[in-house]
Amino acid sequence: MGAMMIEDGKVDILNLGFLALDGVFASDLAVANAARVSFNQVSQEMTEKDVGLINFLMRERHGTPFEHGFFRFIMKAPIFVAREHHRHRIGHSYNEWSGRYSKLDSEFYIPRYVRTQVGKPGCYQYLPMSDEESRKVREEIELTAGQAFLKYDSLLELGVAKEVARLVLPLATYTKYYWSCNPRSLMHFCSLRNSLNAQYEIMEYAKAAELFFKDAMPITFEAFIKNGRVSP
Amino acid sequence: MGAMMIEDGKVDILNLGFLALDGVFASDLAVANAARVSFNQVSQEMTEKDVGLINFLMRERHGTPFEHGFFRFIMKAPIFVAREHHRHRIGHSYNEWSGRYSKLDSEFYIPRYVRTQVGKPGCYQYLPMSDEESRKVREEIELTAGQAFLKYDSLLELGVAKEVARLVLPLATYTKYYWSCNPRSLMHFCSLRNSLNAQYEIMEYAKAAELFFKDAMPITFEAFIKNGRVSP
Amino acid sequence: MGAMMIEDGKVDILNLGFLALDGVFASDLAVANAARVSFNQVSQEMTEKDVGLINFLMRERHGTPFEHGFFRFIMKAPIFVAREHHRHRIGHSYNEWSGRYSKLDSEFYIPRYVRTQVGKPGCYQYLPMSDEESRKVREEIELTAGQAFLKYDSLLELGVAKEVARLVLPLATYTKYYWSCNPRSLMHFCSLRNSLNAQYEIMEYAKAAELFFKDAMPITFEAFIKNGRVSP
Amino acid sequence: MGAMMIEDGKVDILNLGFLALDGVFASDLAVANAARVSFNQVSQEMTEKDVGLINFLMRERHGTPFEHGFFRFIMKAPIFVAREHHRHRIGHSYNEWSGRYSKLDSEFYIPRYVRTQVGKPGCYQYLPMSDEESRKVREEIELTAGQAFLKYDSLLELGVAKEVARLVLPLATYTKYYWSCNPRSLMHFCSLRNSLNAQYEIMEYAKAAELFFKDAMPITFEAFIKNGRVSP
Repeated sequence: MGAMMIEDGKVDILNLGFLALDGVFASDLAVANAARVSFNQVSQEMTEKDVGLINFLMRERHGTPFEHGFFRFIMKAPIFVAREHHRHRIGHSYNEWSGRYSKLDSEFYIPRYVRTQVGKPGCYQYLPMSDEESRKVREEIELTAGQAFLKYDSLLELGVAKEVARLVLPLATYTKYYWSCNPRSLMHFCSLRNSLNAQYEIMEYAKAAELFFKDAMPITFEAFIKNGRVSP
Repeated sequence: MGAMMIEDGKVDILNLGFLALDGVFASDLAVANAARVSFNQVSQEMTEKDVGLINFLMRERHGTPFEHGFFRFIMKAPIFVAREHHRHRIGHSYNEWSGRYSKLDSEFYIPRYVRTQVGKPGCYQYLPMSDEESRKVREEIELTAGQAFLKYDSLLELGVAKEVARLVLPLATYTKYYWSCNPRSLMHFCSLRNSLNAQYEIMEYAKAAELFFKDAMPITFEAFIKNGRVSP
Repeated sequence: MGAMMIEDGKVDILNLGFLALDGVFASDLAVANAARVSFNQVSQEMTEKDVGLINFLMRERHGTPFEHGFFRFIMKAPIFVAREHHRHRIGHSYNEWSGRYSKLDSEFYIPRYVRTQVGKPGCYQYLPMSDEESRKVREEIELTAGQAFLKYDSLLELGVAKEVARLVLPLATYTKYYWSCNPRSLMHFCSLRNSLNAQYEIMEYAKAAELFFKDAMPITFEAFIKNGRVSP
Repeated sequence: MGAMMIEDGKVDILNLGFLALDGVFASDLAVANAARVSFNQVSQEMTEKDVGLINFLMRERHGTPFEHGFFRFIMKAPIFVAREHHRHRIGHSYNEWSGRYSKLDSEFYIPRYVRTQVGKPGCYQYLPMSDEESRKVREEIELTAGQAFLKYDSLLELGVAKEVARLVLPLATYTKYYWSCNPRSLMHFCSLRNSLNAQYEIMEYAKAAELFFKDAMPITFEAFIKNGRVSP
């Protein structure tokens, strides 16, 4: 598996998902200026000193200067990932494909490598299962999810309301949504979801988000990493 | 079907769900006082004038005086309801049962009356299906969801991580969570979810929430209804 | 007094204040797309139908599609205006010039026309005072504020910490800050502050904000006005 | 100066300010339960293990379980303190005495000990001035603020609108407001304001808030202190 990459403004994730940048208006300069306005000193360009300033803000967890930017993504992810994502409330905006208003596509997530879980809450470890076991589990998931989608179709054909028919669809079903955030809320998402305690699948999205973050705000990103991915 | 009622601090909802009040600290007086502090006039009890004041605040959409109270619920609801609920961000706190850390119970929602959907986006109508059709659809849902739970169990027995095995579970699966909010965010939830455009299932929870709201803050509740359930 | 205008990305307000657009990333199209993603229908350009869609969203108070844009302003305003402004919490970010870290400029607000207040809370009227009275009051304000700034200077010269010396400065003192918001939170600000109940001075800033809003999102702005400046 | 104490639900602060608890609904148990609901294990009382659990949540910065409680305060503070306080947005609700609707009392803050500021931004030190200097500065502040209030009175007598007359009032003027928050947002306030970088005056309020916090949630408070007053 090669390294994750942005191609045409988009990162493919999992079997059918993606994170695409729909628009961005963010810069390291805006962070520096938002901090420097405290001293009534605003500038048109970054200086060497600003690198240190941004690192200082990150380390000392002065969060507000990181709010003056904007990222808008289109994200396609399995529902169980979207569920975790949408628990992020502050500085995050979402608009999602509705299973009440339109028929959901027959697309669902199947893990490439299946894992087992050992240990206790707070310190779980996730280990890959054997190829043979993985293959079997993948087939089972595909079969069960596939049957659920067939049932969904037949309920719709019977005239059942879409919002009711979806009851049978699995948590693996893909959904799609607009997601807007600012650099601070983006870092908060990444600090929690690109972490050892996060579930592998949402971690992939957090890693992709970091690629876009790094592109737009390289100095801020570096300071974020340097300070242990702790959101300010 | 009888009227919805609070029994032992709890309202049973749908086939297996509920909304239970875990704690409340809210009063009409706190609304009046938060408004009157503008004039540096705070009182220890409600007067006749305060009824008018609360109605004025509601009508003119002065929202902040309604934030100085607190409701904490335990809610058990199907995942597709929780998904809609958790989109409410501001003034809402949630902590939910995690399918990553523990095995989910084999409990899922089956609609008592199945409905069909007619009309166009923005003005759908939902009509009951015949008893015969309803019975058939209920059986299909039960069968499909039941099979998904059997598969879930067998994946867990194979040693698949809980967070992966849950992929096959249906959106009808019940989850459980703590939900805290303030009177203003509660009204916002009710105004959107106890409305003709809301899905029936979440509407039931919104109606239950209003029962608890009315109990704690009868004058505020009355003003809310009088002003067309428009959240201030 | 001529109509308020944007010149070089800036609107001059009151005697020494301004609202300047530091950056914007917002469009009517993003509103339409955020709404249409509900139906899994996203487009690259606005159509006639989208005008109706945006009006529908505004009227029915579907607020979330209006969150996917971004405005960043630099604002210079008297402290009593900043105080009212900073009460807007959700979807608003601020970074302000600090009187703890740097010396504040000797600049303060003097109203051009002084007004008197008649009537009762909830239905005040503000009427202009005579030219003669206005002139006198302006002089009094200028004198008192001027003396306060002289005292501020002399306390600083004595070595008093800036954060302490500022105690004597008047609420008329100008401050400056970065302000970022999204189209929804911007409308919320405008609906409350460009209103008959708002104080004249902050109303001027809200009017200026609407000029920038209209420039970036003409269709959304029109729908906002058409629906009585009620924030969705 | 004796230790800060709660008397009759109130802590006196600075020369004329206070922080009074108007109501509280918060407990350590609610934190433990909100965390344990992840495992579908909720209990009616705290156990030894819960102490460790709360410490774990604090250390690992799992913040949401700390949101299920409520504090409502009445706070009287100088305007420059209120200005810093009201910058706290998420999980904080405020309703304040309005200088537009009623006449403000002639009460202002005079520091007991005046301090000087040495060093550079990010690492200032504040040192007490001599008794003689302090006395002189106090007199100056009192004189200047007193004259501003006399001017305020005379402007009101001339019929100037309250919202205009207040322009001359100093930042030292006392205001009063309702403040509601949850344990998490309270900790966030305390972590920033009961800190070496905070201004002395707001630090006094943060210290008082911690007294109430400790009373209601002793185990959570202890974990907060143990983990370096870092808000989860």
